[in-house]
Amino acid sequence: MTEFPASHKDLLDAEVATLATLGSDGYPQVSELWFLYDDGELKTSLNDSRLKTKNLKARPRCNVLLLDLKNPYRYLSVKGNARIEPDPDYEFADKVGAKYGGANLREHDGPGQSRVVVTFEPVNVWAVDMSAS
Amino acid sequence: MTEFPASHKDLLDAEVATLATLGSDGYPQVSELWFLYDDGELKTSLNDSRLKTKNLKARPRCNVLLLDLKNPYRYLSVKGNARIEPDPDYEFADKVGAKYGGANLREHDGPGQSRVVVTFEPVNVWAVDMSAS
Repeated sequence: MTEFPASHKDLLDAEVATLATLGSDGYPQVSELWFLYDDGELKTSLNDSRLKTKNLKARPRCNVLLLDLKNPYRYLSVKGNARIEPDPDYEFADKVGAKYGGANLREHDGPGQSRVVVTFEPVNVWAVDMSAS
Repeated sequence: MTEFPASHKDLLDAEVATLATLGSDGYPQVSELWFLYDDGELKTSLNDSRLKTKNLKARPRCNVLLLDLKNPYRYLSVKGNARIEPDPDYEFADKVGAKYGGANLREHDGPGQSRVVVTFEPVNVWAVDMSAS
């Protein structure tokens, strides 16, 4: 399954996503990040200097998990590949910022750094609800 | 840092942990699971037939993330190695069950399956609080 099922659609508007990338040391690297469900796809805006960005450029295989914070037995786990595109004018970064109260993502970037759009292309989607039985 | 800092000690009693393992297909596999902070170590009880157990036996490098469900900008992310030991008599499984209202983990296991204790040996611990600034 590579679709997001109706039972878990609300999680596509969750506050944070858990992203697992593959580090150069052979360990998974896991962190929380802002994301946007945009045009039917899961995307995030990353600063190109971040370790997770470097990991995804070198090793696109990753996993995004969207957790129901009110019921942590319910979540979407998306195995996929990261497609990375430049966002020099912060066009997409501003769309992400709009989700978060109009946040200005430029404030997180230093001189010489730039933004990329990361789109997660699903290979498999698990819709889990261990509380429903 | 391989210690759990005082600022995030409460998360060691969290309801669920996010575990990232490495699949045989080269993708990270991420799921939520019960866990126990026991004798100063993060541990879980797994059925030996589960994919995540097989992943950890073949590739012990993993990551455990403990998220503050009330403030998802605050979490512990633990990069480490899984040490796996048999638990044929459910001794440790019952300790985990006690955390979860006396759950009987035998009910999750089929004929011929058995339990293992997975201990996460930290290589690096990140205590993140993006809400504190």
